[in-house]
Amino acid sequence: MTDLEWIAADWGTTNVRAWAMSKDGDILAEATSADGMGTLAPDGFEDAFARLTADWTLADRCPVLICGMAGARQGWTEAPYAAVPTAPDVTPPTPVDTRSNRWKVRILPGLSQQTPPDVMRGEETQIAGFLTLHPQFDGTLILPGSHTKWVQVSAGEIVSFQTAMTGEIYAALSGHTVLRHSVGCDIDPDAFAEAVSDGLSRPEALAARAFQLRADDLLHGLDPARATGRLSGLLVGAELAHARPYWLGMQTALIGASKLSQTYASALESQGVTPVIERGDACTLAGLRAAFARWKD
Amino acid sequence: MTDLEWIAADWGTTNVRAWAMSKDGDILAEATSADGMGTLAPDGFEDAFARLTADWTLADRCPVLICGMAGARQGWTEAPYAAVPTAPDVTPPTPVDTRSNRWKVRILPGLSQQTPPDVMRGEETQIAGFLTLHPQFDGTLILPGSHTKWVQVSAGEIVSFQTAMTGEIYAALSGHTVLRHSVGCDIDPDAFAEAVSDGLSRPEALAARAFQLRADDLLHGLDPARATGRLSGLLVGAELAHARPYWLGMQTALIGASKLSQTYASALESQGVTPVIERGDACTLAGLRAAFARWKD
Repeated sequence: MTDLEWIAADWGTTNVRAWAMSKDGDILAEATSADGMGTLAPDGFEDAFARLTADWTLADRCPVLICGMAGARQGWTEAPYAAVPTAPDVTPPTPVDTRSNRWKVRILPGLSQQTPPDVMRGEETQIAGFLTLHPQFDGTLILPGSHTKWVQVSAGEIVSFQTAMTGEIYAALSGHTVLRHSVGCDIDPDAFAEAVSDGLSRPEALAARAFQLRADDLLHGLDPARATGRLSGLLVGAELAHARPYWLGMQTALIGASKLSQTYASALESQGVTPVIERGDACTLAGLRAAFARWKD
Repeated sequence: MTDLEWIAADWGTTNVRAWAMSKDGDILAEATSADGMGTLAPDGFEDAFARLTADWTLADRCPVLICGMAGARQGWTEAPYAAVPTAPDVTPPTPVDTRSNRWKVRILPGLSQQTPPDVMRGEETQIAGFLTLHPQFDGTLILPGSHTKWVQVSAGEIVSFQTAMTGEIYAALSGHTVLRHSVGCDIDPDAFAEAVSDGLSRPEALAARAFQLRADDLLHGLDPARATGRLSGLLVGAELAHARPYWLGMQTALIGASKLSQTYASALESQGVTPVIERGDACTLAGLRAAFARWKD
């Protein structure tokens, strides 16, 4: 690994992923750990980073460029948000004070929006990467996750965005309410599709429909995959209703090829919308590469 | 306590409450414990009941009449549901096999509805009690709780009902998502009122509005009482939108004088609806007394 020029990292809430990058932009090695931001105090990040990259041979002051929750207030060092509207590469990364001289760490800014108030950390780098892969894209990017982002992109700028915490709401309802007795892991696609339509047209029914799942199980032994499909579909349907200005008549792209992304793709397709799909890690790496090239010095 | 004729009990998921009743229907003593159905295996109920009433002097085969979750499938003994539409006193209580000869235990049935599927256990006794106190009532009873019940009553019958698990959804979102960092215990009444109106007209916005609370906190240090008021109001507003046929132009009564009931009362009043309010424990006792009189032999 004498070729190692810099390290790219995506530091999320629950885990961290780093890539050893060559001068030519190739990936020499990759490392992941469960040392997410949520598990670390600010003074624990440097040790976690040292553990993560212990097998790699670094020259002194090796450049490290990080995106994600490491830049949150309770992260390694707070990297202030850039405000939308903005191009992805306008705000420089924030330098991090480190004890060791082995690395020169910087963290990329997240994005914020004043009205309605909204924030993201990490997704802005995927968006930047997507735009290096699709420079002419004009429309809506959808980044599914616990906190799904709907992002309006035009002329190379991030114009506005909207977060729906549907994924986290689903996890809270299926894990921490009486519904935990009735839902499972698999999703029945027909039940999901019906519920998307129901959630789109009757979003106000959520609290009643959710209890109906439980009652249907008690009275009729509802199949867990149908219960799961219904709960998920109701929530995604309501999210689609609220996000309508982001997808109706718009060019759309989904970032991420996870099961969750497929769920969103299938819900959008039921409304006649067929998004382009791009891999999430490809976007993250493209975004980190572009930021490294932009802020090299 | 030589006058003790029978024991009335309300056995819920999280606690149990029993009253020693005289021949004249007076309350001689009262006992509560945290031995709720959720904490007991079926063979643990009799011991829990013995502990609860240990200080009371009972004649042999003392009649005990119970409502609530003790009659659930995972309770003491399953008491089958009565199906709506029904009058409150049509279905007899289910006898319970006990090891001791000291008591003769029976559990009142819950109510079920086939379409849409719905169930209740315990509230049916409060409804029966309310109807003994207000025999001419025709309209909608609202029983706030983790699972709030909206109940259509006409000519002394329970015609239909609808459960909204708004309270449990609120607890899951405020306790088990990122919102736990931003909400508190107190509710700002202005923020609540605005959010009720917002939730009524834009229920599909829930997942986005919820994340906005978090972002507003990160960006502007949102007051926790305002965050709490907004989250609660959004959920109650959406519930009101779905329950509109139950309250619009209807006579309404709220059972329960808890903080939660006052929340519902204030939300309904914002829509020009002023419900009668009746105490929950008064309704429970009136319902148990009526059932004991009806099923004495």
